[in-house]
Amino acid sequence: MGTADLKLPVDVPSTALFTDQYELTMLQAALKAGTADRRSVFEVFTRRLPHGRRYGVVAGTGRVLDAVENFRFDEDVLGFLRERGIVDEPTLERLADYRFTGDIWGYPEGEVYFPGSPILRVEGTFAECVLLETVILSILNHDSAIAAAASRMSAAAGDRPLIEMGARRTHELAAVAASRAAYIGGFSSTSDLAAGFRYGIPTVGTSAHAFTLLHDHERDAFQAQIDSMGRGTTLLVDTYDVAEAVRTAVEVAGPELGAVRIDSGDLLLVAHRVRHQLDELGATGTRILVTSDLDEYAIASLAAAPVDAYGVGTQLVTGSGHPTASMVYKLVARAGSADAGAPLVPVAKRSTGGKTSVGGRKWAARRLDADGVAEAEVIGTGPVPAELTDRQLLVPLVNGGEVVGREPLDAVRDRHAAARANLPLSAMQLSRGEPVIPTEYVTGRPGSQTGA
Amino acid sequence: MGTADLKLPVDVPSTALFTDQYELTMLQAALKAGTADRRSVFEVFTRRLPHGRRYGVVAGTGRVLDAVENFRFDEDVLGFLRERGIVDEPTLERLADYRFTGDIWGYPEGEVYFPGSPILRVEGTFAECVLLETVILSILNHDSAIAAAASRMSAAAGDRPLIEMGARRTHELAAVAASRAAYIGGFSSTSDLAAGFRYGIPTVGTSAHAFTLLHDHERDAFQAQIDSMGRGTTLLVDTYDVAEAVRTAVEVAGPELGAVRIDSGDLLLVAHRVRHQLDELGATGTRILVTSDLDEYAIASLAAAPVDAYGVGTQLVTGSGHPTASMVYKLVARAGSADAGAPLVPVAKRSTGGKTSVGGRKWAARRLDADGVAEAEVIGTGPVPAELTDRQLLVPLVNGGEVVGREPLDAVRDRHAAARANLPLSAMQLSRGEPVIPTEYVTGRPGSQTGA
Repeated sequence: MGTADLKLPVDVPSTALFTDQYELTMLQAALKAGTADRRSVFEVFTRRLPHGRRYGVVAGTGRVLDAVENFRFDEDVLGFLRERGIVDEPTLERLADYRFTGDIWGYPEGEVYFPGSPILRVEGTFAECVLLETVILSILNHDSAIAAAASRMSAAAGDRPLIEMGARRTHELAAVAASRAAYIGGFSSTSDLAAGFRYGIPTVGTSAHAFTLLHDHERDAFQAQIDSMGRGTTLLVDTYDVAEAVRTAVEVAGPELGAVRIDSGDLLLVAHRVRHQLDELGATGTRILVTSDLDEYAIASLAAAPVDAYGVGTQLVTGSGHPTASMVYKLVARAGSADAGAPLVPVAKRSTGGKTSVGGRKWAARRLDADGVAEAEVIGTGPVPAELTDRQLLVPLVNGGEVVGREPLDAVRDRHAAARANLPLSAMQLSRGEPVIPTEYVTGRPGSQTGA
Repeated sequence: MGTADLKLPVDVPSTALFTDQYELTMLQAALKAGTADRRSVFEVFTRRLPHGRRYGVVAGTGRVLDAVENFRFDEDVLGFLRERGIVDEPTLERLADYRFTGDIWGYPEGEVYFPGSPILRVEGTFAECVLLETVILSILNHDSAIAAAASRMSAAAGDRPLIEMGARRTHELAAVAASRAAYIGGFSSTSDLAAGFRYGIPTVGTSAHAFTLLHDHERDAFQAQIDSMGRGTTLLVDTYDVAEAVRTAVEVAGPELGAVRIDSGDLLLVAHRVRHQLDELGATGTRILVTSDLDEYAIASLAAAPVDAYGVGTQLVTGSGHPTASMVYKLVARAGSADAGAPLVPVAKRSTGGKTSVGGRKWAARRLDADGVAEAEVIGTGPVPAELTDRQLLVPLVNGGEVVGREPLDAVRDRHAAARANLPLSAMQLSRGEPVIPTEYVTGRPGSQTGA
C-alpha cells in the first residue's frame, strides 16, 4: 500500500481488496472442510438485458486481465485482514501465496452478448476462482453498461464524431474506465486527461463559460483563446447572446474559425440559426459542436440538424438509464473431490424465485442465417454441433495463470463495430424491444463433464 | 506514475489528470492574456434535485480535500502533456509548480442541501481554481448521489441495520467511495474489504450459493461454515429448498444459529414462513437477513415483516434511479485585474436556455421555525441578516492551501442523521415531491464584493 500515506482517493495498488468479505470466509471454511481445492468452473452471464435493450456489449475484459494479474495479498493487506480477524492464520498463509493459476475463457472484448451468454468462464480450484468474483463483476458490470450506451449513441450519431465528456458526472476513476468503454462503443475522443494518459484515447477540449466570464468582454475572451490556440479552435458561443457571440467569433477568428460550441437552449433551433449565420458570415467551413445533456434519443433527433459533432456527458457515464449490467458470477460445475482427475459435476441453484441458472460448463456460438446475419445465440453444455464449430464465441484469455488475451483498444473498438454490423438491422432501433436474436440452449449429456 | 508498470486499473497516484482538457487550455490562454491571476470565486451548486427527491446529501467533501492536496503535476504527467502537445511550455512550467494556495469553504459533509445551495466555494487565482473543476465535481456528484439514496434507505429501514453489498455492481473504486457514502447516509457496514481497509468501515460477509454448491450436500456446506465461523454465523438458505435448508441449519447449528439469509423469492412471504419455522424449531434468537434487489421502497414494504437486517447492492451504488447529482462548478465572481486588491465583480452566464445562474460570492443559512425545524434555505450575496448569523452553513475547509476541514467519518455520519432529523417530517416520505424546504434568495448590493 505504498501510496496510502498520500491519502489519495486511489490507494489500493493491488486489486485483492476489491473483494467481498464472504469470498475470504468461504475460502477459510472450504480449507477447513477440505473442499477448497476441488476443481471448479465459474461463469459470468446475465439473466436478462436492461429493459428494452436489444443487445449487450462486452467491455472491461482487458481491465479484468490486469486485475487478475495484480490480485496479490501483500503485507499491508494481510495485516489488515489479521487485525480485523476476518480470516484465520491458515487462510492468511494461503492468501500470501495467492496467484491465479487457472484458465479464463471469454467473449472477446467488444463482442455483443445476449441473455445467458457465458461472457467469461473461470476455471481452477474453488479457492483461486471464488476470490475473483467481485473484482471481475465490478469491472464487467460497469464497463459493459457504459459501452452499451455508447454503442447506441454511436449508432444514432452515424458518421458524426462523439466526444466523451462525462468525467464530472461519475467517480473520478470510473470516469477513466467509462472513457475506455465509450471508445469501444464507438466514441472518437474524450475530455478526460487520465483516460488519454492511461489508455491512449485521443483527448480534446478548449474552454468553458468560466473563461468568457473571466474576461471583461466576450471579445477579449475569444481573442485570448485564438491567440493561444489558433483559429482552428472551438469557441463557446452561448455565455451571453448566441447571435452576437457568433458575429464576434467570426470577426475575431475570421472565416477560418474551426468550430463553435452550443451548450444550452433548443439545440435543433439554435444549430439551424447558427449555421445560417455562419454561412452568411462566410464561415462555411466552421463546424458546430453541441453538448447539452445529450442521450441517444437527442442525438437521433438532431440527425437532420446542421450539427457536426456531439459531446456527451451524464447520459454516457450513467449508461443512459442503465448504469450497471446485471452480470452474475456463478459456480456451474465442480469436482466431487480434490483429486486432479475427478470429473466435473454440473451444479446450479434451484430454489424458486427467479434466480435459477443453468448448470454445466458452457460453450456459445452465434448462428448466422443464409445472408450471414446473426439469427441466434446458441449455448450448450455438451458436444458442439458440427455446423457451429467455426462460430464459437469463447476465446482463451488466461492460460495456466498467464494472460494470453491482451489486445490493443483499437482492435476491440473495431471488433465491436463489426459485431454490431452483423446483427439484424433492428438492433439499431432505439425504441424498446426484445433482444434482437433469441438465446437457444442445446442440452448436453447430463452428468459429469470433462475436457474442454 | 510509479504503479503504471503494473498495469493496474488504478495507476494515477496524483489527482491532477482527473481533469478535463479544457481546464488546461483555458489556463494557457489566460496566462497568455494576462488574466490567469485574477482573483476568482467558483461555487459548486445544483440547479435542481433529482426528480421527486426532497433533499440532497453532501458527501465526498473529505475525498475532495484529499484530491486537492494531491493535485500535483509530476514528471510523467508533464511528459504526457508535452508529448501530446496539449499545452505549451510556459503552461507546463506553471503546472510543474502547481499547489492550491487558496481557500475553500463548504457545507460540512453529511449536511443536507437544496437547489441553489452553495455546497462548495473555491477562492484563489483563476489559474489555481479552474483546474479543480472536474475532480471536485466527479467526487461530489458521485458520492452525494449515493449518500442521498442511502439516506432514504436508512429512513425506510428505521432501526434495522443496512449492509452495503453493491461493489460488484459498480466500478471497483467507485464501490469504495460508494461504501463510504452509504455509511454517511446511515448504513452500518459493507461487504467491500477495500472500504474497510481505506475508511475503517465495518466489514461483514459469510457465504454465497457457490459455497453450498461446492459441497456434495447442503448439510456438508452448513457444517463446514459452522466449523469455520461458529454458530453465530449467517447461513444462506435459498440454494435449494428454503424450508429444508432452515431445518438443516438449525439441526447443524442448534438454536444458537446467528442468522439466516434469504436472497430470492417473495421476501415478505418467505420471511414470515422462515420466522415461523425458526420459532417452531426453538431458534427464536436467530435473525433473518434479506438481500435481493432491495431499494428504499422494498425496504419500506418489509417494515412489518420479521426481518432483522437488509443487504443492499445495485440500487445503492446506482443511486436508486439517480446515479449522479447534477452539481456544477461555476465562476461567480472575479477581479477586474490581477492586482491583489482589485475588487470582485459578480459574473454569471445569462443566455437563454435554462442554464443561467446567480452571480456573486454567496453565503447560505438554514432558517428554522419556532419549533426549531428547518423552514427555508436562505442564500445571499450581500450582508447576512442578523437573525441568520448563527445559522450559517459554510465552514472553512482549506485555508491558504492548508486543509483545515478534515474530520472522522463517524462525525460526518452523525451530522447527517442530525441534519435529516431537523427537516420537516415530510422529508422522510419516499413518494415523489418538491424539495422539503424552499430556497430563498436575499439579494445583496449589486456590484463589487469584498471581504468574507
